[in-house]
Amino acid sequence: MPYFIGVIGTDGEISEDIRKIAEEVGREIAKRGGILVCGGKGGVMEAAAKGAKQNGGITIGILPGKSRSEANPYIDIAIPTGIGRARNLIVVNSSDVVIAISGGPGTLSEIGLALAEEKPVIAIKTSGGVATLLSGKKIRDKTIIEAESPKEAVEKAYRLLEKSI
Amino acid sequence: MPYFIGVIGTDGEISEDIRKIAEEVGREIAKRGGILVCGGKGGVMEAAAKGAKQNGGITIGILPGKSRSEANPYIDIAIPTGIGRARNLIVVNSSDVVIAISGGPGTLSEIGLALAEEKPVIAIKTSGGVATLLSGKKIRDKTIIEAESPKEAVEKAYRLLEKSI
Amino acid sequence: MPYFIGVIGTDGEISEDIRKIAEEVGREIAKRGGILVCGGKGGVMEAAAKGAKQNGGITIGILPGKSRSEANPYIDIAIPTGIGRARNLIVVNSSDVVIAISGGPGTLSEIGLALAEEKPVIAIKTSGGVATLLSGKKIRDKTIIEAESPKEAVEKAYRLLEKSI
Amino acid sequence: MPYFIGVIGTDGEISEDIRKIAEEVGREIAKRGGILVCGGKGGVMEAAAKGAKQNGGITIGILPGKSRSEANPYIDIAIPTGIGRARNLIVVNSSDVVIAISGGPGTLSEIGLALAEEKPVIAIKTSGGVATLLSGKKIRDKTIIEAESPKEAVEKAYRLLEKSI
Repeated sequence: MPYFIGVIGTDGEISEDIRKIAEEVGREIAKRGGILVCGGKGGVMEAAAKGAKQNGGITIGILPGKSRSEANPYIDIAIPTGIGRARNLIVVNSSDVVIAISGGPGTLSEIGLALAEEKPVIAIKTSGGVATLLSGKKIRDKTIIEAESPKEAVEKAYRLLEKSI
Repeated sequence: MPYFIGVIGTDGEISEDIRKIAEEVGREIAKRGGILVCGGKGGVMEAAAKGAKQNGGITIGILPGKSRSEANPYIDIAIPTGIGRARNLIVVNSSDVVIAISGGPGTLSEIGLALAEEKPVIAIKTSGGVATLLSGKKIRDKTIIEAESPKEAVEKAYRLLEKSI
Repeated sequence: MPYFIGVIGTDGEISEDIRKIAEEVGREIAKRGGILVCGGKGGVMEAAAKGAKQNGGITIGILPGKSRSEANPYIDIAIPTGIGRARNLIVVNSSDVVIAISGGPGTLSEIGLALAEEKPVIAIKTSGGVATLLSGKKIRDKTIIEAESPKEAVEKAYRLLEKSI
Repeated sequence: MPYFIGVIGTDGEISEDIRKIAEEVGREIAKRGGILVCGGKGGVMEAAAKGAKQNGGITIGILPGKSRSEANPYIDIAIPTGIGRARNLIVVNSSDVVIAISGGPGTLSEIGLALAEEKPVIAIKTSGGVATLLSGKKIRDKTIIEAESPKEAVEKAYRLLEKSI
């Protein structure tokens, strides 16, 4: 059974640096045979899905709206939910572990939901945004795990999963 | 792009007759290259997913709870939502058309949600339950399409999709 | 502790007859000190809320969108959910019993959700739509209770609640 | 039309200091005629609701589960949603502004959702937890507003609302 790795981060425009980080995270997930789960839209979600597809990975996009056409072109399985931002919970619940790359308010909500649902969260410290703000921070009894690079993030994700499940 | 065909119906124990109908619906969807979407649990959902897998189809299960292990063994992509019966809306929104087989209250809710979200609903008249009760009935300006057999149901689904999309 | 009585039915334009039925249901609920719960929008929801307010009742509207201004003018407590039609589940879960007046696809989904969540459903037989179609029908092991008039519907609702709780 | 003020924070056991802060926030909201919205459960939610009720305020609790009995004793209007943590979005969408007191993962998710839904968030800096961690921080283009005391938090909330609406 493959693992489901959630990738969360900025929607919309992202810098070239963040795009590279997200693509590499996607690639690393695909190389290890993981299934990439994300919110299905642009920015980090699109770059990560692109990276995964370039390595033959499978990608799932949990969309806020009702139309499959909302999904970025690298999503294999688009799930239009029609429940708006409540879909953030489903991104988290469909993932065994979550990797945060940059990100703003939506990503913040997904980190909170992931921790609340007992999913480990790994934040790429060098990616800016919410990931930088929270990487290494303790939220009550849970620590948001730091990673310096995409590779380290995916390695840490797999190490956690292989231990825990 | 393959079509996403929703199959809705009784959870839990089902008769041998209903099981055969559901399996055949799954098989017919897989033969045409469709992706089967369902609620991921037992009864009609399990039989339909089994039928699809036996013909090399792909199956998606949108689960009410938080654990992937809730899914029946024939589900390829399990989506644990953690939103309880509100997941019925997501089953519907993830489907291009919905086929109803027997069914009780949950199926009734999915038929209503599908019609409200402008998805065609095909009910197998001979399968009992809510499908028999409502097949051919008009709900405001929308008719629940009658099918006499699994094959006819899937044929009608594809005819509708090929016309409309 | 007052009871929470859900009123479900047609959104948008309704006939004078249906409007009178819905208003009377609202009035009867208010007279007995019940809190009226509905989807907060027009048609049956607005008429029922109006009837309740005219008798000093309290009204709650669970809205699909994000803006309180979506609510009809007779709603005291508007709850904008932002989860679209998944809010139908919340209308049902916030009610101790549900009364259906006329109605189309959305009402059909609410009847199904109410039965699935073990809430009694009373349908006013003379109100047309889904209420007429399903009043007295058995869905698996649950019967949609018939009522001939608004008064009878509310009386039956209270009789059930006083027995069960 | 009164304002709806969301109060978010730690569920379960809280210290005496946090309890006092939450109660005072509730009292201040009630004094100004605001309606207090919260997640309906224990800890900060219960203390804030208690403070509001002691000043004749109205309190709404949006519950994750299906049973009204989940609500703390100071909730006037309990809304059982049955959608688990997706109810966090509804707490936010039902509020015109949100005040954060201490808090862990759930509160973190609500701060993110509130900012994403364009609701101002005020965090009481001295209350510990997520409120202390994030007060004054900028999440993309939005700042989580600092408040030194319950009174200041409610004053800032009203100043914002009176300007913006």
